[in-house]
Amino acid sequence: MELKFDAAGTQALIRGGVRVADKGGLVVEDVRQGYARIRLPFRDSMLRPGNVISGPALFTAADSAMYALVLSHLGPALMAVTANMNLAFLNKALPGDVIGEARLLKLGRKLVVMSVELFTSADPQRMVAHVTGSYALPGA
Amino acid sequence: MELKFDAAGTQALIRGGVRVADKGGLVVEDVRQGYARIRLPFRDSMLRPGNVISGPALFTAADSAMYALVLSHLGPALMAVTANMNLAFLNKALPGDVIGEARLLKLGRKLVVMSVELFTSADPQRMVAHVTGSYALPGA
Amino acid sequence: MELKFDAAGTQALIRGGVRVADKGGLVVEDVRQGYARIRLPFRDSMLRPGNVISGPALFTAADSAMYALVLSHLGPALMAVTANMNLAFLNKALPGDVIGEARLLKLGRKLVVMSVELFTSADPQRMVAHVTGSYALPGA
Amino acid sequence: MELKFDAAGTQALIRGGVRVADKGGLVVEDVRQGYARIRLPFRDSMLRPGNVISGPALFTAADSAMYALVLSHLGPALMAVTANMNLAFLNKALPGDVIGEARLLKLGRKLVVMSVELFTSADPQRMVAHVTGSYALPGA
Repeated sequence: MELKFDAAGTQALIRGGVRVADKGGLVVEDVRQGYARIRLPFRDSMLRPGNVISGPALFTAADSAMYALVLSHLGPALMAVTANMNLAFLNKALPGDVIGEARLLKLGRKLVVMSVELFTSADPQRMVAHVTGSYALPGA
Repeated sequence: MELKFDAAGTQALIRGGVRVADKGGLVVEDVRQGYARIRLPFRDSMLRPGNVISGPALFTAADSAMYALVLSHLGPALMAVTANMNLAFLNKALPGDVIGEARLLKLGRKLVVMSVELFTSADPQRMVAHVTGSYALPGA
Repeated sequence: MELKFDAAGTQALIRGGVRVADKGGLVVEDVRQGYARIRLPFRDSMLRPGNVISGPALFTAADSAMYALVLSHLGPALMAVTANMNLAFLNKALPGDVIGEARLLKLGRKLVVMSVELFTSADPQRMVAHVTGSYALPGA
Repeated sequence: MELKFDAAGTQALIRGGVRVADKGGLVVEDVRQGYARIRLPFRDSMLRPGNVISGPALFTAADSAMYALVLSHLGPALMAVTANMNLAFLNKALPGDVIGEARLLKLGRKLVVMSVELFTSADPQRMVAHVTGSYALPGA
């Protein structure tokens, strides 16, 4: 299928939507067929005791990556909502920008299923969380 | 087992820990054997487009309820970390305080497994999300 | 909503469908508004090394409980398919019949979301697994 | 880390363990650093109404792939148990051998976290389910 928006267009859509995530200056770095990569710039408020990035910040990054993937592939008219998220926390998320790589697993009429791999810029080779989730499509 | 802390003591511990969640004035309303209930007071920043409470805010409430359950039962020395979270989003979370009821499913030597039911004060009878998750215990 | 089938009717439907589960003589013990309880009679083939009931047998029981809940509430015309299953394994499942109690979390137009608590008759007070899952409804 | 067993050795271990899965003649096709691929030969009993492979058969394949990955990397002494499984069902699993590719996400002291992609030989390019799961390691 053809993409509806490139990275810049997807980012503008998300930021324009005043979604929670964009308050942190969410960057949509790349969108390709079946793929989207976002970056959530580091802020102190992401940290929790132990000086690691908190679960809610990682959730935000994963959800933003999925949202970018959905918007870039299906367009702005869509009010998709998260149906399900499963997060496996793997390694301590050292302070840095949070990078999320979303991959399309299935684009159905009712559900979009995706996986997201999360990293931080402090150690871009070490996955900090693996996420699987689905968005329900309205009006299907 | 005996509880290590009551609701007030658990709340003080969490707020003292400067955990992300406590910035919103997290209230630990009740802790009992195998149970903890928290309340995350409503703030505008919880909203996403459509005027419903965002996924990250719901995640924060679920994680805080689990954390309150773990701390009240195992005490403060413990640096437990979230290993896994599975969230099923059920109904639109209308604006209001987010209430999380955590129940202990298993207290093992290595893992604590819990479920959380989430509601908002706008409609306290309607569950907005059902969460299952686990914390890994250190030094086991 | 009114139930479409009682326990006996639901059981007949499932067994008639030659679903894998019914080869084990699946019993639908109870269906009520928002609830279904099934029993999967013990067979040696359910065991794995260590003399405990295997993961696939527990999965089968959870899926059967969900299927009984869906069929009794929505009727036989429906070809619902499992969209997602999350299983938290809590305690060793000692040999015995596997009992699954399914509860309705949400009946939407596109998705039915349910939880299932699994026990075995060897220790009916000890939950062996907690499951959350969803079925996608066709033609929505 | 060095592998403890190659594909043939891992397969012999699993079959020797009289695990449920091996009754179907489970084949361990490949093990490499951080990777294992298994094949569960097709049998009629895997089918459910609609002539597609059942959820329990897919669960069995996913669990077997994870078990092969764990055994090949950690050796036979280990009695690891499944702690958690999350399955996203993506496409109808057309009749054929079920192929599971497990990848290591984290090898911790207490938990091994893995993902599995499932296919059938009827359409080896189309993923039928994506699974994430963890095994708890004993004696940690």
